[in-house]
Amino acid sequence: MTALADLADVGRDSRRGGYSRHGFDRADAELRTWFTEQAVRRGLDVHTDRNGNLWAWWGRPGPNAVLTGSHLDSVPGGGAFDGPLGVVSALEAVSLLQHNGFRPSRPLAVVVFCEEEGGRFGVPCLGSRLMTGALSPDAARRLVDADGIILAEAARSAGIDPAGFGPDPALADVGCFVELHVEQGRLLGDHPVAVASSILAHGRWRFTVTGEGNHAGTTEVADRRDPMLPAAAAVLAARAAVVGRPASRATVGRLTPIPGGTNVIASSVDFWLDARGPDTAAVIDDITAAVRDAATAEGCSVAVREESYGNEVRFDPALRDQVATLLGDVPHVPTGAGHDAGILAGVVPTAMLFVRNPTGISHAPAEHAEPADCAAGTAALAAVLESWCR
Amino acid sequence: MTALADLADVGRDSRRGGYSRHGFDRADAELRTWFTEQAVRRGLDVHTDRNGNLWAWWGRPGPNAVLTGSHLDSVPGGGAFDGPLGVVSALEAVSLLQHNGFRPSRPLAVVVFCEEEGGRFGVPCLGSRLMTGALSPDAARRLVDADGIILAEAARSAGIDPAGFGPDPALADVGCFVELHVEQGRLLGDHPVAVASSILAHGRWRFTVTGEGNHAGTTEVADRRDPMLPAAAAVLAARAAVVGRPASRATVGRLTPIPGGTNVIASSVDFWLDARGPDTAAVIDDITAAVRDAATAEGCSVAVREESYGNEVRFDPALRDQVATLLGDVPHVPTGAGHDAGILAGVVPTAMLFVRNPTGISHAPAEHAEPADCAAGTAALAAVLESWCR
Repeated sequence: MTALADLADVGRDSRRGGYSRHGFDRADAELRTWFTEQAVRRGLDVHTDRNGNLWAWWGRPGPNAVLTGSHLDSVPGGGAFDGPLGVVSALEAVSLLQHNGFRPSRPLAVVVFCEEEGGRFGVPCLGSRLMTGALSPDAARRLVDADGIILAEAARSAGIDPAGFGPDPALADVGCFVELHVEQGRLLGDHPVAVASSILAHGRWRFTVTGEGNHAGTTEVADRRDPMLPAAAAVLAARAAVVGRPASRATVGRLTPIPGGTNVIASSVDFWLDARGPDTAAVIDDITAAVRDAATAEGCSVAVREESYGNEVRFDPALRDQVATLLGDVPHVPTGAGHDAGILAGVVPTAMLFVRNPTGISHAPAEHAEPADCAAGTAALAAVLESWCR
Repeated sequence: MTALADLADVGRDSRRGGYSRHGFDRADAELRTWFTEQAVRRGLDVHTDRNGNLWAWWGRPGPNAVLTGSHLDSVPGGGAFDGPLGVVSALEAVSLLQHNGFRPSRPLAVVVFCEEEGGRFGVPCLGSRLMTGALSPDAARRLVDADGIILAEAARSAGIDPAGFGPDPALADVGCFVELHVEQGRLLGDHPVAVASSILAHGRWRFTVTGEGNHAGTTEVADRRDPMLPAAAAVLAARAAVVGRPASRATVGRLTPIPGGTNVIASSVDFWLDARGPDTAAVIDDITAAVRDAATAEGCSVAVREESYGNEVRFDPALRDQVATLLGDVPHVPTGAGHDAGILAGVVPTAMLFVRNPTGISHAPAEHAEPADCAAGTAALAAVLESWCR
């Protein structure tokens, strides 16, 4: 029996609460070892692909393979379910099918995608974007974490050669993909399991406001060029921009004044804007205009850089309907959360299963799913895999 | 010849620029070693006091001693002059007097105060506050840095027993104190050197706004309790509160969303307000009210804690006038910056010398003083010490 409880002690974050597990860090290494052991115990063949994703094959790899899986990394101070639930459920679904004596007629693999949250290097779905060609290997290699470590170096120190990054020819052999994930709102109501219909368009923008570092006690208002003021304006503008656009989201959850001293006017501020929904371009325009106005008033300059962007994803309707029917007419639900399934959907017929989240809280230590709902999710995933591999 | 250039490589901050030198860190240890070597080279006897301050005695310690010195720590990403200029100038003034064959008739000591900026443990003038009894040893021992390290533990690891913290009886033997410091505005005009008249009242307040961590993509506006919004309101309120109060300052230079993920609504935000001037109570009231209003609107809670506060300091007028006359009627200037001299002024007749700052920039890598002005400062300090010790 594999369970999330196996991972209860891996990558705990004593400062933030919850878990901080990021691509190529120590927790990531422990999680890779754990996954490999679990897969080998089920007779699966494990290998790490050119982009740092893990594959565990039931049967010889080959054409028309069925793929399932999710990710093991977390946001900083994240919950236990976002990512690992899909990996644990995939391993458990394999166990269930093996216990029932099922022999898949197609190759079947469980995949663990690398750095789905982008918690360390900023780009979400890093492994699946590289695999599908949605992110250039050059751009990926140059990504830098908060400590100034370059992705290429971090990958190398984890035993993965960054020179090999890029579109994976093995993807041509994948016939379809299904990812199970904890739901991240409260859209499932009475249903323990649902199928995904769509994912909101989603982008991340990094703003750098540059002013002039100076002394907090001696510098008069007229002499100040304080970049915290335009940054504060951005936080408020992000809220204002979505109030009249109910399908949109805009959030500033990461903001770093430099140098960050109590008695120091910051010289610059970096902050990140996460924006999603149908009106993302207009939302970003509104917020950028507000930041630029505030910066001009304060004598500061602003640089804006798009770190990632993905259009709305609508999952393959035929596959979605087939899965929903197989599972007993479970509901179709949209989501505002990004997933590797949203990246793979561009190149492979893809479906997604959600497991009910009783509170809707996610990306936080309080994230939860009931054991009975998790078991229902595993059973549903096993049923989908069985139907596809029959 | 001792010069700031000796310290050019100690505690450089490659991320922020400038220097990050904080109480009991590695740079601090290097600086203590450097100071000890410099003092011993001049025949001074060095010891570390019960609060982690360094004393270098010229002559046997005894009653009616003359004290001079400053600090070697910096703000995060600070400049080269704030603090070290006063220590280097004191050592050079001793050299100058020794070179001239001067023999002080009173004991004379050069002091290096510990953690003047409060850059690590939050309380400025830590060493001088402990020495004078302005900060309780219990409160000091419990201070915590950003990594969760308790001050008592940090001191112990630097070889200083925190059980000994507290008012220093040796202070009863100090007859007067003079601190030389780079000026931190542009108030000196044509004068390379000035005497200080006053220091603004100064306090630091730590605000913690608590909301609810959640997913940046799936959480609708109505369900958000985002603590970044009240924090942003605080930044803007700090500016608004001082616009009509020209003698006041209010700054938010340090702000930390927790967990700080791009795709995560923060669960809480810590930020620090540095406020100075005659209307500090009203300024804090205005800002706190704005934060509380914004927090109520967002379903967040607010906790405010005063980390330090000191009333306005007016330096001993007789001593100030005596020093200004001795130096050729140099100007008297007030300052908004805090100093150990402001703490000692409460218990010992104290004077302060400022060396001209051509740009007024301070607490930043661009902080500067011209070599000729630094030399004038050293000569002025030597003249003061000579006149006091004749």
